[in-house]
Amino acid sequence: MSQTLAVINCSQLVTLSGPARPRVGPELCQLSIVADGGMLIRDGRIATVGTRSEVEKLIDNDCEVVDAGGRIVLPGFVDAHAHPVFAGTRANEFEERSQGASYQEIAARGGGIQSTVNATRAATLDGLVASGKRYAEWFIRSGTTTVEAKSGYGLTVEDELKTLRAIKRLDEETPLRYVPTFLGAHSIPAEYKSRREEYVSLIIDEMLPRIAQEELAEYCDVFCEANVFTTDESRRILSAARAQGLGLRIHADQLSLSGGAQLAAELGATTADHLEYTDTAGIAALKSAGVQPVLLPGSVYALGSSHYPAAREMIAAGLAVVLATDFNPGSSPTPSMPMILSLASTQMKMTPAESITAATINAAYSLNRGDKIGSLEAGKVADFVIYDCYDYRDLAYFFGIEHPWRVYTGARQVFRRL
Amino acid sequence: MSQTLAVINCSQLVTLSGPARPRVGPELCQLSIVADGGMLIRDGRIATVGTRSEVEKLIDNDCEVVDAGGRIVLPGFVDAHAHPVFAGTRANEFEERSQGASYQEIAARGGGIQSTVNATRAATLDGLVASGKRYAEWFIRSGTTTVEAKSGYGLTVEDELKTLRAIKRLDEETPLRYVPTFLGAHSIPAEYKSRREEYVSLIIDEMLPRIAQEELAEYCDVFCEANVFTTDESRRILSAARAQGLGLRIHADQLSLSGGAQLAAELGATTADHLEYTDTAGIAALKSAGVQPVLLPGSVYALGSSHYPAAREMIAAGLAVVLATDFNPGSSPTPSMPMILSLASTQMKMTPAESITAATINAAYSLNRGDKIGSLEAGKVADFVIYDCYDYRDLAYFFGIEHPWRVYTGARQVFRRL
Repeated sequence: MSQTLAVINCSQLVTLSGPARPRVGPELCQLSIVADGGMLIRDGRIATVGTRSEVEKLIDNDCEVVDAGGRIVLPGFVDAHAHPVFAGTRANEFEERSQGASYQEIAARGGGIQSTVNATRAATLDGLVASGKRYAEWFIRSGTTTVEAKSGYGLTVEDELKTLRAIKRLDEETPLRYVPTFLGAHSIPAEYKSRREEYVSLIIDEMLPRIAQEELAEYCDVFCEANVFTTDESRRILSAARAQGLGLRIHADQLSLSGGAQLAAELGATTADHLEYTDTAGIAALKSAGVQPVLLPGSVYALGSSHYPAAREMIAAGLAVVLATDFNPGSSPTPSMPMILSLASTQMKMTPAESITAATINAAYSLNRGDKIGSLEAGKVADFVIYDCYDYRDLAYFFGIEHPWRVYTGARQVFRRL
Repeated sequence: MSQTLAVINCSQLVTLSGPARPRVGPELCQLSIVADGGMLIRDGRIATVGTRSEVEKLIDNDCEVVDAGGRIVLPGFVDAHAHPVFAGTRANEFEERSQGASYQEIAARGGGIQSTVNATRAATLDGLVASGKRYAEWFIRSGTTTVEAKSGYGLTVEDELKTLRAIKRLDEETPLRYVPTFLGAHSIPAEYKSRREEYVSLIIDEMLPRIAQEELAEYCDVFCEANVFTTDESRRILSAARAQGLGLRIHADQLSLSGGAQLAAELGATTADHLEYTDTAGIAALKSAGVQPVLLPGSVYALGSSHYPAAREMIAAGLAVVLATDFNPGSSPTPSMPMILSLASTQMKMTPAESITAATINAAYSLNRGDKIGSLEAGKVADFVIYDCYDYRDLAYFFGIEHPWRVYTGARQVFRRL
């Protein structure tokens, strides 16, 4: 690989350049597109962004030149909510749901998250890394270059550590970048059903200190819901996590209005995720506290619901909206951010431009990486995708297919379509 | 290419073998899967289907062997309703819809089908073939090997002929197989708005005879809807088409209960398509007349509606249900049959097995090709796909990505993933 890379002949170079903070309100529509654009990259970082002719003047003999052939170029997607490390699949439960069973019914008879927990506990670290690599390829092929990765299918000290170590290895061994989140509070495991208080203590007293000590997670997340972790339990766990130096994320108001958004605001969490049932008061609380909402329409769709979060109300309220896949084997089996853009436009009435902002620069800020990734600006890491499209709106418009033509992370080509 | 090809090591060889007719009721669930299966193919046709060991005994030195590596193998999808030849896109209208405009509002101000008609009239035959080839690749990459292709964006004698000639060239010049359908009655073109009777006469007196004479279509379709073609107009056009030797298909009850299903039954059409608003009486009429329903959940989804057709009621009534993409630039911009399987399972409560039957053998019968394609049985054309999956249910379950690993038409490899 040469040290300098030039990308030229981009019909739309979608830079997302702008203020050094997440975008709100009308800013979500401002993609800062350079027509007939180009980029110069040195040592894995963006040196220059400009028009093709401006960039061509900087090309010397040592420079590798990539001709985009008039295609569009965007920063790699940043997927800020995913569960990409697990064993087995739940295709059987998917089939049962297509026969009319509800997600809650399946969970009540020992399926749901618990069935993935059983498989993940039985898996080796190497096994989790192997299946994780398959999914990493899917993310990359879909144009994602950074993914947040939650644990939460181990639910013992050792199995949570095993999962977080698998995430660390995937970050090292694949071209995808991972941001690790500890989600020991994903579900009360079967063996603790009648003594949930002990499981909360296990998280606080044993899991969190070990994970913090080994620096295996940047964030802590809790599934705050009436039948999962109560707001009181969630508050205790997240407060302990903050004391250990972790940032906070919350699964909030997914299946009912259970106070998760309010708790996220109270604790100053970085994000509140899902929010299908969050009301106007919850939105106002998130706004006051500067919490970013992470919307996950993939799970609404895949569960056969039509109760999508109130994206338009959140944008109108000035929230720095993020979109993510929620990739997981139960409720959202898609690694594709373009699929999420399609859902955002067709089901939540977000424009393609708003959705792209929510899936790149806003997502990067929600992972404390807004200064490094999520836009194509001088000084940033050169994570970018050349799509086989000629209008950025096509990414949300033509759905169900993989649009990337070339994917680069840190200026290294990690995917190419023949 | 050697004359004999063996495919071995298929964890699930999903044959769809069964009675020589479309499948109804519980038959839709019967995929006839051979575990650890294999196939022997001679001169583009399937010679033997069996277990791996049965097939391995037949391998000689001249035989090319494809090791599926434990992956699953299915017949290529047969997409029985698509509009894959048009100029331009409607990404701008997609954006307007995400901002709240309805499909009908956009059409009323000269957008919608008319905007694609304007672009298609301005395009050359070569131009239509070029954009059609891009979409052909998308179909193939998604596992489709045969597609029904409607005209209907020309709406003049010459532009309808140009479109059907483009379809003929695409059939000859791409690996995808096309079944041509004349859809001159797709919309009343702008210049005939105040004299619709003249346009109906143009279809009947000029278009149909030319198309029949040049053998450019196998079927005639009409968009039967209150504000498009009335049931009386549709009846006249379809009766004339039948007199010219064409089979009949109808866009029926898509936006309202407008009598399309009843008309399809009355005329003994091969298919009635869409059927979002068809009632129990319409379903009974289709059953009595042996009309196959072609369900198109992609357009319901992409238009942001939740009014899906009553798939379960149709299956219970004994209809030989078909699923298709409705690929088109306005209401359903997806070429992906796996995406349609996902929609069928999550939004219409069809199981993955039912959906696969509807998208292969039943679709083949709806195009008068049930004896040639749609299943993997001795004597049939060797159109098949090896998916990078290990359970056929994964095709409906993991959505938004392209699963094919190898695609073959007539035993020729036409797509491979690295």
